[in-house]
Amino acid sequence: MGERVLIALGGNAMTGPDGSAAPEEQRAAVESAMTQVRHLVDAGHEVILTHGNGPQVGNLLLKNQLAADVVPPVPLDWCGAQTQATIGMLIMNALPYTTATIVTRTLVDPADPAFADPVKPIGRYFTEAEARRFEKLGQSWRRFDRGWRRVVASPEPLEILDAPAVLVLMRAAYTVVAAGGGGVPVVRQADGSLAGVEAVIDKDLAAALLARAVRATTLIIATDVENAVVGYGGPDPRPIGRITAQELRVLHAAGHFAGGSMGPKVEAALRFVHGGGERAVITSLNGISGDSGTRVEK
Amino acid sequence: MGERVLIALGGNAMTGPDGSAAPEEQRAAVESAMTQVRHLVDAGHEVILTHGNGPQVGNLLLKNQLAADVVPPVPLDWCGAQTQATIGMLIMNALPYTTATIVTRTLVDPADPAFADPVKPIGRYFTEAEARRFEKLGQSWRRFDRGWRRVVASPEPLEILDAPAVLVLMRAAYTVVAAGGGGVPVVRQADGSLAGVEAVIDKDLAAALLARAVRATTLIIATDVENAVVGYGGPDPRPIGRITAQELRVLHAAGHFAGGSMGPKVEAALRFVHGGGERAVITSLNGISGDSGTRVEK
Repeated sequence: MGERVLIALGGNAMTGPDGSAAPEEQRAAVESAMTQVRHLVDAGHEVILTHGNGPQVGNLLLKNQLAADVVPPVPLDWCGAQTQATIGMLIMNALPYTTATIVTRTLVDPADPAFADPVKPIGRYFTEAEARRFEKLGQSWRRFDRGWRRVVASPEPLEILDAPAVLVLMRAAYTVVAAGGGGVPVVRQADGSLAGVEAVIDKDLAAALLARAVRATTLIIATDVENAVVGYGGPDPRPIGRITAQELRVLHAAGHFAGGSMGPKVEAALRFVHGGGERAVITSLNGISGDSGTRVEK
Repeated sequence: MGERVLIALGGNAMTGPDGSAAPEEQRAAVESAMTQVRHLVDAGHEVILTHGNGPQVGNLLLKNQLAADVVPPVPLDWCGAQTQATIGMLIMNALPYTTATIVTRTLVDPADPAFADPVKPIGRYFTEAEARRFEKLGQSWRRFDRGWRRVVASPEPLEILDAPAVLVLMRAAYTVVAAGGGGVPVVRQADGSLAGVEAVIDKDLAAALLARAVRATTLIIATDVENAVVGYGGPDPRPIGRITAQELRVLHAAGHFAGGSMGPKVEAALRFVHGGGERAVITSLNGISGDSGTRVEK
């Protein structure tokens, strides 16, 4: 009997070996990633796919910026939506199944403290003069060692608003792509209607929410390393294999995954298992159909 | 008992009064259009929405062109997919119903004669020097009275490949947005897999196909005029009200709708009714919930 598996694809599943998000490189990377996904589907598992979009949104932002004198730039949330469609389309074209891509919105709280202090850098480095120019359009920019970068809020995802549509399609045997880039962040306005906001949502935290909403048994976070590592970058790094959520929580609280990008992945894995999921796996793209990786169970 | 109605929204439903596709103007136009759509839903009809994307794709193409030295341009089919997501999101946010937006691909024939002789102009006018530069990237450009414009193929839509997902969601009471911009054109390759192609699909012809695929009873083509007109631009223009498909076919064959954009709308209406649909209506956005417009019946 197959499992219901949500796979969260990291950036390396959609970009070339050098991180390039040029169209042909995106297509080739997605096709390669889908050969791994096919192993899972062909083994009888029900698969739902979500994906990051950092390099893709970076390219879209840059185009908007470079063309801003001629074409009105679109907001960040629109760029996120755009990447859901292009990446979804590539994924669908690379899978010989009944597939669907759902444009997905994720509810966030307008009072989330992240909005008061945007810290998540997005897009490329610019000069101070360029940064100042975009600040005048209401954007936040900060100086980093290598130059100026736009910073945005990364609020907590509260609900994957379009998850019910995903579930409807899954029940009809569709392999569904959803919540790309963590979903398009929206807030509920005073009149009850929804409106997009300029923010980015961590795609792994959104994946954990989506996985719970569609009652997945397994959340696989596919990244560019085989395992989460205790003592990463230190003298005695130890890859984590099978581990209980409680043990991992202790390591997480002790700050073992603070540096780099592993922190949100560990947090997403813990949330999923604590919320009732059977297991969360942090592994490489090549490991998604195997038994390797960091396997978090209750 | 409500009807199953597919509404094809024209460009004026997504752009400002001056045709601007700036984000805020798109949002305002969509919100205004959705007040009309709500009349239909609230009257008990099942509604499926599709939409054009000309000005939006034009903006995306221009951004790609202006940034081409820095960021690799994405192909035209990607731009189309991008507009499905942004317009779908705006539509969903403006409707207080259970909604979903499906990223939609439309099958075309790689041997369609349109590919051998691309004539559909897209995007803005450029100088000859700029046109020549993009010709080197494999694009076709032509000189018009006002300058050079990119031309692409507009092949016949053969099948709305993602229509089955639309039907699954409709059966679960979703108001679905699909086949925006006529759908992303794809061809089936020798190995059976699908690949996007740089082309544009007439959104009204795609709407007629989608309407048949989801077994709509009514196809409404919402545009910026109240009726199709016999003798348009001549001394004795006569707006067409209720008409049989057979009568309209005769007028169409006589070339009455050749000029301007009415031809494909009349063709789409005829295809829908000849294919078994109950009625096709060509009307203004304000007329979609009324009895006005050109009403084509068997």
